[in-house]
Amino acid sequence: MSTVWDQRYAQRVQRIQGSAIRELLKVTEIPGAISLAGGLPAGEIFPLEQIAEVTQRILAKQGQQALQYGTTEGYTPLRELLAQRLTAEGVKASLDNILITSGSQQGLDLLGKLFVNPGDPLLVESPTYMGALQAFNPYEPEYVAVRSDNEGIVTDELEVALQRHPRCMYVLPSFQNPSGVTFTLERRQQLIELAARYEMPILEDDPYSQLRFEGEQLPSLLALEHQRQQQLGQGDQFYAGNVILLNTFSKVLTPGLRVAWIVAPAEVIRKLTLAKQGTDLHTATFNQMIAYELARDGFLEEHVPVIRALYRERRDAMLAALEEYFPDNVSWTHPQGGLFLWVTVPDGIDTAQLLNDALEYRIAFVPGAAFHANGGGANTMRLSFSNVNTEQIEEGIRRLGKLLHTRMLHV
Amino acid sequence: MSTVWDQRYAQRVQRIQGSAIRELLKVTEIPGAISLAGGLPAGEIFPLEQIAEVTQRILAKQGQQALQYGTTEGYTPLRELLAQRLTAEGVKASLDNILITSGSQQGLDLLGKLFVNPGDPLLVESPTYMGALQAFNPYEPEYVAVRSDNEGIVTDELEVALQRHPRCMYVLPSFQNPSGVTFTLERRQQLIELAARYEMPILEDDPYSQLRFEGEQLPSLLALEHQRQQQLGQGDQFYAGNVILLNTFSKVLTPGLRVAWIVAPAEVIRKLTLAKQGTDLHTATFNQMIAYELARDGFLEEHVPVIRALYRERRDAMLAALEEYFPDNVSWTHPQGGLFLWVTVPDGIDTAQLLNDALEYRIAFVPGAAFHANGGGANTMRLSFSNVNTEQIEEGIRRLGKLLHTRMLHV
Repeated sequence: MSTVWDQRYAQRVQRIQGSAIRELLKVTEIPGAISLAGGLPAGEIFPLEQIAEVTQRILAKQGQQALQYGTTEGYTPLRELLAQRLTAEGVKASLDNILITSGSQQGLDLLGKLFVNPGDPLLVESPTYMGALQAFNPYEPEYVAVRSDNEGIVTDELEVALQRHPRCMYVLPSFQNPSGVTFTLERRQQLIELAARYEMPILEDDPYSQLRFEGEQLPSLLALEHQRQQQLGQGDQFYAGNVILLNTFSKVLTPGLRVAWIVAPAEVIRKLTLAKQGTDLHTATFNQMIAYELARDGFLEEHVPVIRALYRERRDAMLAALEEYFPDNVSWTHPQGGLFLWVTVPDGIDTAQLLNDALEYRIAFVPGAAFHANGGGANTMRLSFSNVNTEQIEEGIRRLGKLLHTRMLHV
Repeated sequence: MSTVWDQRYAQRVQRIQGSAIRELLKVTEIPGAISLAGGLPAGEIFPLEQIAEVTQRILAKQGQQALQYGTTEGYTPLRELLAQRLTAEGVKASLDNILITSGSQQGLDLLGKLFVNPGDPLLVESPTYMGALQAFNPYEPEYVAVRSDNEGIVTDELEVALQRHPRCMYVLPSFQNPSGVTFTLERRQQLIELAARYEMPILEDDPYSQLRFEGEQLPSLLALEHQRQQQLGQGDQFYAGNVILLNTFSKVLTPGLRVAWIVAPAEVIRKLTLAKQGTDLHTATFNQMIAYELARDGFLEEHVPVIRALYRERRDAMLAALEEYFPDNVSWTHPQGGLFLWVTVPDGIDTAQLLNDALEYRIAFVPGAAFHANGGGANTMRLSFSNVNTEQIEEGIRRLGKLLHTRMLHV
């Protein structure tokens, strides 16, 4: 039904769409339901006592500052700390390379605002993170999707896409949401080389790389880009490369603080800061101080291994259950970290339809189509193992497997 | 100097500009400086103890929920409380009429995103709130500025502007930032009638109306619009009018929590929610819970009178000092509430130039030009009295008065 308001909205309203995931979050409220849908961190290991302690300290010593208006760039000690850590990891950075954002979702919105004109080609992986599409959509890009395989984005196919002179490229190279896939070192290097040759900025979304369960830690695209510049003799300068990186406290501390950050060349940070000023003035200083106090005293170095161990156990439980309960002609990824894995079922099966049946069995997952910028993926789904215990995982996969077996009898 | 990045930004980057105010905030860090520039609430009366108390309670009892991802619409009990209060004030509302935002600045950004196409005429007051222009600018409206006098927007001149079929109108009717002016009841009624006749949505920014020092409380435009609809026999329905209202805890509690809300017809709230999802997923539940706990138990009813009394004393001190120290041919507004007043100096004096001299005397204000969407106002300035004590006000106005007297000798 059309209403008087429908004629009042701007054109871009057609591109502003809801996320299937957030609708599915409601499933978790049904008693006995098992949700493998939402990408929620495990709430039972949130460090509530430590947060309570630093919160009291902040309110006692810096209360006025914590609750007053703050600078758009973010809380200076936090920016300095993040810059120091980057520098220690080999990417020379100052606080001018850092902008604090209200979650990485805001970072994506600001990057869309800064870089995307209506109709601009924007490179994304296929599949890609649905929330990024939601952030970029109102700026009306034309997505150019590049296929990924188990080693990450297929760089051989990327060069064809680059002929279209994309405005920039959005990638999530470590334990990707949704697929769980990690770019190999070789693919990372190829991507950096190609982006440099075509002078195309890369937006690297990096929320999960600290949550590695096994295998070797790989350098971020940002770190590789910094190395490339150093080798070109642009030696001892602060980071000024082609890659803009989004990072966050959401997966290593708690998502509810809504504190994340962008790393970029100082001149890009300045533009992003102006954009953020118009968007929400600044991120709550109180929340930034909490993250800072916990990050600076080494707490995260203790806490992140706890998260890793828990998620690893849950991933293992899910892989085992998939092996046991899913039909032979279904395949899935084997993520070395993160929160998700990705299932491909035979072509004839539409996972969006499957979800309807699954919800009757009180089990939820995210159908894969929504992660595809330009369609496709109807026979894929995302499963999250981070916020369900091993019993729920076993039971959830058992129910889903049963459904799949039944469905296959009718294909 | 043009850099490789300058060719990479989207067109709209030209419209993304910084705020003079936020630059001037840095002045407050100079020892002995007196800033009448920033619109900061008085930090010394932030209720730190009460916030510490509810914070501990929340972390002890609802910690996981407070720090987990939350719904985009906002914390349900807070939305219900805000809806109940609106209903008690005569505007029948349900939680579906409420979206929680990360400060009202985010509300402005979302409304720009939802309503403004590039080139669309957008009505604003002259002067108007600079932060609103910053929020709307990236959506590239064409501003149509309508003059305000001491009774608010000049409705006689509004009808001419309405011939251009503006997309919507942004107004701040109570103790306006920057001018301190409040629309009279008659002007409010005229505006509602005109907007209804031309089917033009009104975006009513209402952060200050609870901070009235004297005179009668006036109904919001939203309340008048609800009445109008009731009189049309659309009787006992939830709010579905033409006015969208932005409100916030920033001026009655603390700005640093970054918790505000939008009141609108349910169908508009649904669209705004989708837009917010792509923009920052949700506002920190922790922060919403703090605001909720303090709002629900009657604390604000005690606290707001304390703020009012303090700001009234400061406004009185500023009015007295202006009378004593400013030249005769300078005029200023007499706000009945809020944080600001507005000074008009003789035509030949440019307040942006005056500011340079003032900064040498370590006194800051905001030159008025930035509050004008389409130029003008070079001989105006905004003075804020909320975050300076009466001695600072007297001394600051004395210095400024001296400067003005000197300047007038040279005009």
